[in-house]
This record gives sequence, structure tokens and C-alpha cells, in this order.
Amino acid sequence: MIGFLSDFGRENGYVGSMKAVAGSICEDRLIDISHKTKKHDVRRGAFILYNTYRFFPFKSVFVCVVDPGVGTERRGIAIETEEYVFVGPDNGLMFPAANDCGDYNVFELSNKEYMLEGVSETFDGRDVFAPIGAHIADGVEIEDLGPQIEEIKELNFGDWKFENGSLRGEIIFIDSFGNLVTNIPYNKVKNRLDFGDKISYKSEEIPFYRSYGCVDENNLVLTVGGHGNIEISANKGDAAKITGLKERDGFMLKIN
Amino acid sequence: MIGFLSDFGRENGYVGSMKAVAGSICEDRLIDISHKTKKHDVRRGAFILYNTYRFFPFKSVFVCVVDPGVGTERRGIAIETEEYVFVGPDNGLMFPAANDCGDYNVFELSNKEYMLEGVSETFDGRDVFAPIGAHIADGVEIEDLGPQIEEIKELNFGDWKFENGSLRGEIIFIDSFGNLVTNIPYNKVKNRLDFGDKISYKSEEIPFYRSYGCVDENNLVLTVGGHGNIEISANKGDAAKITGLKERDGFMLKIN
Amino acid sequence: MIGFLSDFGRENGYVGSMKAVAGSICEDRLIDISHKTKKHDVRRGAFILYNTYRFFPFKSVFVCVVDPGVGTERRGIAIETEEYVFVGPDNGLMFPAANDCGDYNVFELSNKEYMLEGVSETFDGRDVFAPIGAHIADGVEIEDLGPQIEEIKELNFGDWKFENGSLRGEIIFIDSFGNLVTNIPYNKVKNRLDFGDKISYKSEEIPFYRSYGCVDENNLVLTVGGHGNIEISANKGDAAKITGLKERDGFMLKIN
Repeated sequence: MIGFLSDFGRENGYVGSMKAVAGSICEDRLIDISHKTKKHDVRRGAFILYNTYRFFPFKSVFVCVVDPGVGTERRGIAIETEEYVFVGPDNGLMFPAANDCGDYNVFELSNKEYMLEGVSETFDGRDVFAPIGAHIADGVEIEDLGPQIEEIKELNFGDWKFENGSLRGEIIFIDSFGNLVTNIPYNKVKNRLDFGDKISYKSEEIPFYRSYGCVDENNLVLTVGGHGNIEISANKGDAAKITGLKERDGFMLKIN
Repeated sequence: MIGFLSDFGRENGYVGSMKAVAGSICEDRLIDISHKTKKHDVRRGAFILYNTYRFFPFKSVFVCVVDPGVGTERRGIAIETEEYVFVGPDNGLMFPAANDCGDYNVFELSNKEYMLEGVSETFDGRDVFAPIGAHIADGVEIEDLGPQIEEIKELNFGDWKFENGSLRGEIIFIDSFGNLVTNIPYNKVKNRLDFGDKISYKSEEIPFYRSYGCVDENNLVLTVGGHGNIEISANKGDAAKITGLKERDGFMLKIN
Repeated sequence: MIGFLSDFGRENGYVGSMKAVAGSICEDRLIDISHKTKKHDVRRGAFILYNTYRFFPFKSVFVCVVDPGVGTERRGIAIETEEYVFVGPDNGLMFPAANDCGDYNVFELSNKEYMLEGVSETFDGRDVFAPIGAHIADGVEIEDLGPQIEEIKELNFGDWKFENGSLRGEIIFIDSFGNLVTNIPYNKVKNRLDFGDKISYKSEEIPFYRSYGCVDENNLVLTVGGHGNIEISANKGDAAKITGLKERDGFMLKIN
């Protein structure tokens, strides 16, 4: 299976041409993760990839293009982990997902044999990453793509900590429902939080429940999102609008 | 074939992870019906499904997730009809389509064997409906999913009637072109309406024609939409904007 | 492979039903080019198709539906070139792509045997173009679709010229990044332009570089886009907003 992630949107034919290129090379299923991650926002794209890759079958390849540095000196790379291969720019986009897999090896994409002929300067997604991803899915050895390299650009989702009865963290991601996804993995704090607990955010009390429907419509609720992180939501409402919190904002939640 | 319907949008990886899960289980073609049906709007989702399912080949399975009650007591169900299986929440979403197929049997989704391990509380689409839909497509017997149940949540698209030379009905759906789809099936009124007839809506006369292009640009026209219902449209224009009508608004059309 | 292009958006089930119909008929891979080309804008759709088709493998079929004249006298046609077949309305939409392939033959779609039964008046995409495209992909002879015709609607992307040291052209397309794609193919002017040259647009100097990243953030830069045309862009910024240029606007670039 090949998963595609980009910030291309669908108003153009960019995604279609990437998938046409890949589909010309290999028979694998082509699955869109998202093409509307938010233009140029590498960190947001990284979070979506990190939260999605594990649902793909082993041996899947990911073609990832949130790439504001296309055409500059930033390298194209392939990251090989035990179960997956990630292909895209060396700007941190694929780091959290690859790192989450355990050990990895990285190769610079320099062998033009597996790229489209007449590579353009501005569309590596179509000309480099899509064909190389498809060739890997088709059995090409990753060592054939170019030299192995040691250092790649790292990216993380900010710090969080538990201190004096409070959780301090950061909003990584706001989804299309307005759910505020924090950078706090539930399994790291689960001995501190029980369902039914009340948490204070600013002057407001927010209960921690299993699901949105446990509170009245438009009321805030703390839950564990589908990605496994703590999330501030509102039942059938938009928690981002209600709280005014934006991506990358910090917050403090006091456990009562 | 597996058809996917949700209100997830594509800014997240939610749809991608559902399809990755399903694609890991079965070889069937994965077709997106829509993932932008309108958040939490079960009735609108139900209409889209009802108008689309019949174009899928027999034995197709539908994974349907417009599910504002996820994580509450609402059940997950599979509805088996002679030709299709619908998998999703028991909130009426799949009722009009299933009912349109004729007889059906319903099973509650309780057998965890066919769900993802470590099911989250907030993402049944990925953890329950997608894998179960794929297992059904792959040949699992529907009786193995859980107990058969008798009653499910029904949903209809409002009443309409013909009275004193007037059609009274309701707007069910406004599509991306601004076409106003009514809840009146053309084949129920076709002995009352002939192409070329004039219909009055408020103080305006609207002709009933085969197609948009029979009137001047931006003029209103009554047609039969691709779904088979009466539709108020404007040639190359937006009938919703012109009339001010919104989804669920009632209307009266006088046949002159 | 079958490529789909339309202006349907994804808020409806329209695309899903087209692909379900096609997928019921043939096993080919179904690839979305774009369904958000811009409603009723045949020229913009034509440009997206023209820039994407060549990345599909030979023998691919394209189902194209930007079709404001659906239901009127405009014909449905199939255009056969040496490598590809294009199926859609005779309104110019497919002309630039087909013409770019070299010689072509055109057939009017009149044989109802390959359409859906009970064709609606308003949804040829689902009822005519999708099934016919899939039948062609499945091996049906194009001569069986209807009579060969000689004349079809042509469409071009406007004129451009080099005169007195200036390039005069037109903006054909603004992509989702705000890149301004001109109607000037780089390979027609490459003996007049060198990377590093400065070009004047109004009172502003814009450098011609290989890629966006060669200028500072939000600065304008002239590049060769992925489609091979000259493009006015801004590094990580929106050139359309910065310049105020809109699709179909003319411009003059003075080569300094």
C-alpha cells in the first residue's frame, strides 16, 4: 500500500499526477492520507502522518510532500524502518512517524534512474517522491536510491509536563471538528487522571470523560482522542471556537 | 466494492486511516462517496447515501460514519439487504438507503474479534465500522458480528403532498452547485407535471424543463435531478442564493 | 487507468456514484485528477487536464465533466489519440490535451448500449461518460460508440508574444498556493531567459530562478512551474494576493 500526504489541496491536478505516476510503476493500492494538511505547515503534516501511519499494513510506503523548501538545498530522503518506508523532504515531516517505529536508516535520493525524466525544479512530489515511493513498493532496494546518511532534520511536538497538580502542554493540532488535540499522550498520564475527574482550564471546569456525548451539547469535555492524546472537545460543538485556542498555543490544565 | 461516507473532511488523516484499515483486511475496491456531507448532519448524510448506493455493484458494503453520538449508548449496526450491507451507527443514517432496498436484517456490532484491538472511545469509524465492513466484504458472515435486533432508528426526508393544484414539500439537500433538491420523487408526480409546464413559486413563474440549459443564465428552472427528485435550479447559477431557501425549508409550488 | 476530472466538489455523492459506475464495469485503477476545478469553468478544467494527462500510462481513459451545457444540444464525444482516450462534453474541455497528443479521431456518443439505463437529463457524468469511459477501458471499440465526427469545439489558452524585449501573456490558472501560471511555455522562450535574469512587472523587479526558495519569504520570483509554463510565484507566499492578478488577466513582463 502507498499512502500519500501533501499540502497540495485538490483544486489542481497535482495529487492526480502524483498518483498517476505511482500507479504507472506499481500495482499497490494508493491511499490518500490527506492533501489538505495546511500549506507549508510541516509540523501539522508531521502530526497527521504520525497518527495515521500505524494503520497501514506492514511494508507500506509513504509519499510525503509538505515541502516549502522544494528546489533549495534541502535533500530528498527515504527513511527505512522495520515495517515501513517514508519518502519525502528532509525537513522533519517524516521524523516523528519514523522515530516512533524504532530504529531507522536514511538514504539520500540521488539516483536519477528512479525519478521521472526531465525532473522539474518545483514539483518533487510528482517527479521524485512519487516514482521513488512506487519503485520501493515495487521491490527496488532502498540502498540503490543513493548514499546512506547519518543525520536528518528532527522535529517534535513541543514539551509537556506534569507539575504541582497541573498538566502543561501545547495544542498540536485542531481537526475539522474543532477538537483541540494536545501533545500529551494519555498513556503517559493515565495514572494521574480518572474518567469522571474535573479539570480546570482558566476559570472553567471541564470533566474528563470517555466520549463527547457524556456532556451536554456545546459543553467542553476532556477525552482521549483517536490518536491516543488528550484532547479538549465540545459535544457537537467546536472547542477551538469556544476556547479561542489555536495551534501551538500553550495551556495549563489543573487536575482538581 | 466498499463505499465510504463520513463527515470527517479531508484536513485530517481520519479518512486515510479508515481506508488503510479496510485495505489491510480485504482486496476490494475502496470508493469514497463523500467525506464532506456536513458535520453531525445525519439527515443530509442519509440523503447522499440513499442517492448513491444504487450505483454500486451488488454485494458492495458501505461504511457510514456521520455519528455525533459516538461513544454514547447508540449502537453500531450492520444492515443486510438482498444486495448490499450497510455498516455504521444506529442513528437513522443508513435507514433510507436500506429501506429502499426492500427487506433487511439488522445485527448489533458486538463481536470484538472483527474490530481493531484497543478500540478508542471516539473513533468508531476507524476502529469498528471500517474493519467490520472490510471483514464482511471479505466473506465474514454477518451473523457472526453480534445478535440480530428488531428495531432500529428510522429517518425520513419529511412529508410532501399534492393539494389544490399545489405541491408542498421540503428542501432535503442543497448540492455544491446550489441546486435545491426537494423531497418529491418525480415518478410519484409525473402524471401531474409535463415538461413545459409553468410552476409558481411565490410571485415567480418557474418552467419545468428537462435540463438547466433550457432557460437563460441565472434563471430558475424546475428539473428532475440525477437522484430522481424534483429540483429547483438555476442555469449556471446558484438557486439557493437566488431563492434564499435553505435545507429543511418548506415550499409550495403552484402548478399553473 | 481511468482519470476523473470534474467540477462536482466532494460535498455530494456525485463523484462517488461516477466511480461506482465505472468500477462496476472494469477493473482499471480509478484516479481522481480533481473535482474542484471551479464550477462551470471549462477553460480552467481544460488546463488542469492538459497538464496532468501525460503522467498517466498509455491506454488510460479520461472521464471529464465540466459541463455547464448538460442536457442541451451539446454533444457527448470520445476523442481517441494514439495513447489516450478522452470522454466528455464537446465544449472544448478536452481539446488542449487531445490536440497536444497529435492526431485524433472523434466519435459522438450516441449508442445507448454503453450508457446507464434510464439516463437522467442532468447527470451525464454518471449516466453517460463514466460508463462509456469504463467500457472503453474494458476493451469496447470506440467505433461502436456512435458516428465519427469531423469538427469539435476548440479551446486555447489565449495568445502570448515576445515583443520589444517584453513578454505579453495571460494568467491561465491560479493554483491553491496562489502561484500564477501563465500561458507561456518555457521551452518556447528559453533562449530569451536565463536563470538569474531580472524581469520587470509594473514597477517591480522579479528575478527568474529555478525555484521558490531562491528568494526571501513572500518575495516574488519567476520560475518554471511543474507544468512547464512560466509562473509568477512568491516564496511561501501567495503571488495572487501580492500582485492582485486574477485568472485571464493579461500581463507584461519586461526582460531587463
